[in-house]
Amino acid sequence: MLKYDRIYNFSAGPSTLPVPVLEEVRDEMMNYHGSGMSVMEMSHRSKVFIGIADQAEADLRELMNIPDNYKVLFIQGGATLQFAMIPMNLMKNGVADYIVTGSWSNKAYAEAKKFGKVNLLASSKDKNYSYIPDVSDLPVSEDADYVYICENETINGTTYHQLPNTKGKPLVSDQSSMFLSKPVNVSDYGLIYGGVQKNIGPAGLAIVIIREDLIRTDLDEKIPTYLRYDIHAEADSMYNTPNCWAIYVCGKVFKYLKSLGGLEAMNQINIEKAQPLYDFLDDSKMFRGTVEKEDRSLMNVPFVTESPELDAEVVAGTKDAGFVNLKGHRSVGGLRASIYNAMPKEGVEALVEFLKDFEAKHS
Amino acid sequence: MLKYDRIYNFSAGPSTLPVPVLEEVRDEMMNYHGSGMSVMEMSHRSKVFIGIADQAEADLRELMNIPDNYKVLFIQGGATLQFAMIPMNLMKNGVADYIVTGSWSNKAYAEAKKFGKVNLLASSKDKNYSYIPDVSDLPVSEDADYVYICENETINGTTYHQLPNTKGKPLVSDQSSMFLSKPVNVSDYGLIYGGVQKNIGPAGLAIVIIREDLIRTDLDEKIPTYLRYDIHAEADSMYNTPNCWAIYVCGKVFKYLKSLGGLEAMNQINIEKAQPLYDFLDDSKMFRGTVEKEDRSLMNVPFVTESPELDAEVVAGTKDAGFVNLKGHRSVGGLRASIYNAMPKEGVEALVEFLKDFEAKHS
Repeated sequence: MLKYDRIYNFSAGPSTLPVPVLEEVRDEMMNYHGSGMSVMEMSHRSKVFIGIADQAEADLRELMNIPDNYKVLFIQGGATLQFAMIPMNLMKNGVADYIVTGSWSNKAYAEAKKFGKVNLLASSKDKNYSYIPDVSDLPVSEDADYVYICENETINGTTYHQLPNTKGKPLVSDQSSMFLSKPVNVSDYGLIYGGVQKNIGPAGLAIVIIREDLIRTDLDEKIPTYLRYDIHAEADSMYNTPNCWAIYVCGKVFKYLKSLGGLEAMNQINIEKAQPLYDFLDDSKMFRGTVEKEDRSLMNVPFVTESPELDAEVVAGTKDAGFVNLKGHRSVGGLRASIYNAMPKEGVEALVEFLKDFEAKHS
Repeated sequence: MLKYDRIYNFSAGPSTLPVPVLEEVRDEMMNYHGSGMSVMEMSHRSKVFIGIADQAEADLRELMNIPDNYKVLFIQGGATLQFAMIPMNLMKNGVADYIVTGSWSNKAYAEAKKFGKVNLLASSKDKNYSYIPDVSDLPVSEDADYVYICENETINGTTYHQLPNTKGKPLVSDQSSMFLSKPVNVSDYGLIYGGVQKNIGPAGLAIVIIREDLIRTDLDEKIPTYLRYDIHAEADSMYNTPNCWAIYVCGKVFKYLKSLGGLEAMNQINIEKAQPLYDFLDDSKMFRGTVEKEDRSLMNVPFVTESPELDAEVVAGTKDAGFVNLKGHRSVGGLRASIYNAMPKEGVEALVEFLKDFEAKHS
């Protein structure tokens, strides 16, 4: 039995959080560090809360080694609002190139079309988004304001192991489901963003890391104030009341990741954690992963049996065994194990044991 | 000494929460009701979280007696995003009438101008927003899509004790700083909304209560998807991952208010709570309230001494005495006590004692 009778939660998001972080949050609920109040009750302009937000940003900058010429913004509305904010803020020529590798890049692509000329630079739709296309020499538009990717597709389980050659155009990357799972070289990007509810903290917050020269002030007057990066940047993400609670919890997760050794260490942990599951899927006669081996995600592992009926039987079995959220996304079916930073290795090993056992009993 | 060494927090928002709510939230942190996880870790599409969200909505509907032809939406981005969403969604003729009674209605008015023809129907700027204008017979525009008010001005401390005669046009009301402080007749409004971080729960969530016939689907294609009421309504506020944590905590506050007797009871409590402070200000030779008596808010009480220097001295004194956030908003100066639902009567009484004592020592 796990501490506090907790269970292994394979949810794709919101998703499992580190137990030590939850314990701290619990212990600080009635009175945060002698302030006489909970973090939820603090004025966002108070010294104590600004200290929490500044520390969170500093720890994120340290973890990701973010250069000084990048701003870190905390914005509400999730990745969905970013799908609109990115073209509204970055389209100067009114042109952007999108690479579509699954559900989320496809949504971003559809939304961007509202705001300008959007080219489909490459797609893996031909094989049901089960791979990442060759992105080493794509016909990037000469007047493209940026090239867009979803670097890890939560639903489809693919990830880029090599970034696209954007031929000098800024690269915009949705890292929601791989945020802080491994080191990235921030300078390779114009903008990195993600909803935090998959691999960092509670829902209701997107983190946007944007190169300063891409923050425009000469925007169309009709863009809603809340949707302007320059407004958020100018006000250090305090133009209005931010999601203070999410910033606080994310800050604790940043500290926790630092205590584990930072992103190099997390990458190693994540490689070792995914290994037994992928090894099992490669060996199994009943189960198989749905993604090309070289494009597999370390975070989201979709897999299937020979039939939807058997898939459903396995899902039911996992529930009885105390695992939750292993059903594949309603748009693709099958099963999916999301094994983010906070999923312990023991959780993956227990799942593999269960699947092995299921296969043995059913063959 | 208060329980948990807590202090009296007069913040205008985010602001103090009921201690029993915080205790429950703390106790459910590691494992919510046997689910094996914290509410922050739950898939927003899981049965357990949908149960939490549905119950929150049901309790809010009961508290406010919301008719069936009104939708309740949970949207991120705070009141600031609503300043844009309201005109973008409600302007069919491209015309709206705004009544400006302080900082927040003024911000909403400025934002609305981006999206259509906006008339200043009435204003109390002539007397520094210290009163509510006569709104019984205003020249409402014939083609106005709605009439807009901020029903309680957090910074200026005014409140409407009589709603405007909108001559049949839908009334849109920002109730952020008076949400659930007293009963309102929802049918009098086309749309009620508010950021929850003032009188309900943690920051990062706006609640929008909208009459169904005002939810349009024939909107301009260029409106960002996240900014469309029809999208949120169609998906029961789950088009994307909502601020689950805020919905959960707000739900607990709804239950708590029900346990106190609902909004009639809250109104009585709030009247009795504000009384000693207003009585003191009316009697004092050193302090005076800045708002016309008949337009005073029960939630936000701004007051001043004869000079900014003495104001600052009082503020410093309150801090030493263990009260926080009594400094007036940077835009108006002086002092301000925000005494929302969750501020206990004892807090107001203690403040009055302090102010009396301060006056006695300084005269």
